Amino acid sequence: MTGEAGGPRRRPAGAVSLPEPSTGEDRLLRRILDVLPAFPGAGAREPGLILGPGDDAAAFAWPGGGVLLLTTDAAEEGVHFDRRLHAPRAIGRRAVAAAASDIAAMGGRPVGTLISLVTPPADEGIAAGISEAAAERAAELGAPLVGGNIAAGERIGLHVTVAGAGTPGAPLLRRSGAKPGDGLFVTGSLGGAALGLSLLRRRQEGGTTSFDPEEEALVARQLDPAPRLEAGAALAGVAHAGMDISDGLALDLHRLAAASGVGALLEETRVPLAGKGAGALEAALFGGEDYELLIAGPPQQVSAAAGRPGIPLTRVGRVTGAAEGIRIERADGAAEPLPRRGWDSWTAGRRNPE
Amino acid sequence: MTGEAGGPRRRPAGAVSLPEPSTGEDRLLRRILDVLPAFPGAGAREPGLILGPGDDAAAFAWPGGGVLLLTTDAAEEGVHFDRRLHAPRAIGRRAVAAAASDIAAMGGRPVGTLISLVTPPADEGIAAGISEAAAERAAELGAPLVGGNIAAGERIGLHVTVAGAGTPGAPLLRRSGAKPGDGLFVTGSLGGAALGLSLLRRRQEGGTTSFDPEEEALVARQLDPAPRLEAGAALAGVAHAGMDISDGLALDLHRLAAASGVGALLEETRVPLAGKGAGALEAALFGGEDYELLIAGPPQQVSAAAGRPGIPLTRVGRVTGAAEGIRIERADGAAEPLPRRGWDSWTAGRRNPE
Repeated sequence: MTGEAGGPRRRPAGAVSLPEPSTGEDRLLRRILDVLPAFPGAGAREPGLILGPGDDAAAFAWPGGGVLLLTTDAAEEGVHFDRRLHAPRAIGRRAVAAAASDIAAMGGRPVGTLISLVTPPADEGIAAGISEAAAERAAELGAPLVGGNIAAGERIGLHVTVAGAGTPGAPLLRRSGAKPGDGLFVTGSLGGAALGLSLLRRRQEGGTTSFDPEEEALVARQLDPAPRLEAGAALAGVAHAGMDISDGLALDLHRLAAASGVGALLEETRVPLAGKGAGALEAALFGGEDYELLIAGPPQQVSAAAGRPGIPLTRVGRVTGAAEGIRIERADGAAEPLPRRGWDSWTAGRRNPE
Repeated sequence: MTGEAGGPRRRPAGAVSLPEPSTGEDRLLRRILDVLPAFPGAGAREPGLILGPGDDAAAFAWPGGGVLLLTTDAAEEGVHFDRRLHAPRAIGRRAVAAAASDIAAMGGRPVGTLISLVTPPADEGIAAGISEAAAERAAELGAPLVGGNIAAGERIGLHVTVAGAGTPGAPLLRRSGAKPGDGLFVTGSLGGAALGLSLLRRRQEGGTTSFDPEEEALVARQLDPAPRLEAGAALAGVAHAGMDISDGLALDLHRLAAASGVGALLEETRVPLAGKGAGALEAALFGGEDYELLIAGPPQQVSAAAGRPGIPLTRVGRVTGAAEGIRIERADGAAEPLPRRGWDSWTAGRRNPE
């Protein structure tokens, strides 16, 4: 059916070329894709369909010209958010940002948002707060909330669909297309969302009552992420491949490499860390929910595109041949296989390391 | 946020001009719309936005030309379906048909489908069956399933988004625009889905073990509805107003009249009934889930458009001035107020009469 499991995280993912379904969501997607009879993208191509399941968003050639991008994302209570940690405002804002990030990951511009909200009748006030926050964030991102649906259910669930337009004149930024010799880049810094979630949990458990400014910044990464729309659009004509990092750099690098049929070498010391201390690298590699972009492309051209203001890019490694696998070069120079793990919404939000 | 509550039923509904919020879903929508700050359609208009919340689908002017339609719909276990009555195949097919019906109701053509699926891990097989059925139905309707999302949750939930294109050269078929003197028309026959559900319940409770061919036809209306895509497109340039009938003719006529600022007189004896016997009229007026179209427009032109094959239209009444209210003319010629009730997904699927 789809791309991938996900919540306010990555969703249309691995899909058609899913490798090593070692996470629960990838395994289920593999199963579902296998039963789909004439699934577009897997066989018969529909007229106008440019890109079916397997990337961050689906893409259509619009009859009058241009490319229509579509993506959908879910935020289920108990899986993607915890109402003790996430206020209605955060639930609404991050779910919209997560879906818009899929459009950024294709190099497109979001144009409109729909929500489908499930809520227990007793939680009507929370539902109104979530809707208000979603509408606010959608308007900020240039993709006004234009419609939706409400239904009663056992737990709160927010499903966000964002439609987007491809950048005129530029090819779509896809997961496939990375070539040996390409540089690997990420936007911004990584691990902040996972560290912020840990801080929120610590406060919930009574371990702390206030945050210092650095901690506040990490908490903001968890509660109010910003999709990299400008970077995605600027890199669409330059990069060979790209996706957003919603399940952690490690798992998403595995997915990009698999979609491109290449290997990769990640340099641990180059990964830009949002936090400090022992857990910062683990959070960056395996935490997820950062909504930064992972980019592969010719190093000089990508770096030049990154010279524009507002596009903080860091080179974190390089693309290799497939035979070399997906490796990480540790601080001491030794290279070892990069674990294929990260955030998995299918196993009820359990993230392996944190 | 949205239009209206709904499941494999109507959803983007009353919204901005919601009158008499006597159903739970309308009341909640009113509340949510009230808290939205600068809600498009309610104030500041976004560039390109043609139609925000309040109709069957949202509409955008696509930069290269044409109109992009977007709608979303939900099917929650225990609210919109019962797994003892609805097989995975029915759950997937009807949810896609219901969302596509919103595009039909705007006079558009569906072009692509996304699903966001929530499922308990133990129900993975059911999830795969639902996805397969959704993909099959989407392909049949010309709107291939191009992406989606899977997440774990407490109960099965299927959220379907359909993107569509407005019929070139024709105005959108909106809920507003009906004028006194217009004829009121419906496609097909009504009440079949509700009667079919009653039959399925009777079988579940052991009251019957098999259905005769007439009963089978009613059950099929419940399990596998067909959106009126051809009729919607043909009537888009002719009718003054239209919507799909997913919550019952009575409630949806109230909504259309409110959006248009008019009254209406429904003639009971003209309503085309899917079933026979005492409950058939009740099911047609209040049952919902039929996904037929309700049309208002100049009688002769609408009838002429209905002369095309595949567009079974029946005149069921006329549009009046707002002061006359929404009335029903009974078989004996007496006119009385038409109750404003029907299917309400917000009150957990309770349908008032059945």
